[in-house]
Amino acid sequence: MGRIICAGLGPGDPDLISVRADRAIRSARQIAYFRKKGRPGQARRIVEGMLPPGVAEHPMEYPVTTEIPFDSPEYNRLLSAFYDEWTARLAALAAQDDIVVLCEGDPLFYGSFMHLQTRLAPIATVEVIPGIPGMTGCWNAIGTPMTWGDDAMTVLMGTLPEHELARHMRAADAIVVMKTGRNLPKIARALALADRLDDAWLVERGTMPNQRMMPLAGADLAACPYFATVLVHGRGRRPASEAAE
Amino acid sequence: MGRIICAGLGPGDPDLISVRADRAIRSARQIAYFRKKGRPGQARRIVEGMLPPGVAEHPMEYPVTTEIPFDSPEYNRLLSAFYDEWTARLAALAAQDDIVVLCEGDPLFYGSFMHLQTRLAPIATVEVIPGIPGMTGCWNAIGTPMTWGDDAMTVLMGTLPEHELARHMRAADAIVVMKTGRNLPKIARALALADRLDDAWLVERGTMPNQRMMPLAGADLAACPYFATVLVHGRGRRPASEAAE
Repeated sequence: MGRIICAGLGPGDPDLISVRADRAIRSARQIAYFRKKGRPGQARRIVEGMLPPGVAEHPMEYPVTTEIPFDSPEYNRLLSAFYDEWTARLAALAAQDDIVVLCEGDPLFYGSFMHLQTRLAPIATVEVIPGIPGMTGCWNAIGTPMTWGDDAMTVLMGTLPEHELARHMRAADAIVVMKTGRNLPKIARALALADRLDDAWLVERGTMPNQRMMPLAGADLAACPYFATVLVHGRGRRPASEAAE
Repeated sequence: MGRIICAGLGPGDPDLISVRADRAIRSARQIAYFRKKGRPGQARRIVEGMLPPGVAEHPMEYPVTTEIPFDSPEYNRLLSAFYDEWTARLAALAAQDDIVVLCEGDPLFYGSFMHLQTRLAPIATVEVIPGIPGMTGCWNAIGTPMTWGDDAMTVLMGTLPEHELARHMRAADAIVVMKTGRNLPKIARALALADRLDDAWLVERGTMPNQRMMPLAGADLAACPYFATVLVHGRGRRPASEAAE
């Protein structure tokens, strides 16, 4: 009886994968990964060059991503059927051998794997290897401290309504907004309402060779990838002599 | 001219250090790390057995930690002088050779290294290697998804006043509270005010061999280490068929 090992891949640079996940990936005989239909998939791209010869690959293709509203019954029905199907397939594969499921970032932090984990846990042995969250890669790409002292940091999804985004942003010192894409104009309006727009950065593909960073106020809001991240750094309590830095 | 390389160590398990930081640590000739006076230091303990023979060690001992109030002028003066001193010493060491500074978690996320980074950046070459944040290790220790769907997650320091903690907790779906220790009774009161106490976990030394996890409501609030973490999982939007899970 094999295990289902979910390996957190971190933010994108293969050198930022943990030692344990690196070892699992380089010795895998079976791997699975999520991807959008017809695309190579970001998770698969991260491990390019790391896989041993002869590894069996199982791409798990989302039936739908952003084509229909995520809160529609049809979206829920399609996604549930997709996770049910892959639960059965992964459990069958794991009956023979270990299988490594690749997941960007940290698997338990807004990851798709969680939908498989809740289904698989009662019927198979599941192990999760943590990863550096994507947002951590993004603030390291900028390279200045994200949070200091007593800063409160809030992580938000760009899919939330504008007034909810603005309410959270007003209360926070440091802010992360994920799931940007077509939500970016709304996110920028919410940041303006919270008087934080001028402090905001847009980071695409943080830690990857083609990473891009720019002040959000100067960005083209109409052309933003879904997986870009908006960051506002904290303004925390600091030792007195640093106050003017 | 050498570099000052800050290696994020992640949550505590050496197997969860990134491949890049692992390589930097195993080939280091000079290392530095923070510790409380008279203690071995958590960062140093994580790399036990990884250091090459003959490495020169530079423990950076805090002049004060929790003995005097962190918002007193004396605390600020002592800490500023400490960071100034180590800025000069690290810059002098880096003039000869690379030096690896060990930092728990992710260095740019509530890390002490940031106080050195802001001082060193104008006078030396500083590189930061991201790490898995300590909180990510804690929710992986519990092993259930921390955030789902559109959950808003807020990270708070237990040093904040009770009413501020409660206000943030009411607005959040998922909650992380760091800097617990003697603040734990206050944190528990704030969670009760926000009606989230019964969902809260206390995690000590997440991912380490001696990790401990317990529901906060059942914990001894008077005996909590400063670096324990309180977690409340999200309750996010999930595909309809999972609603009853």
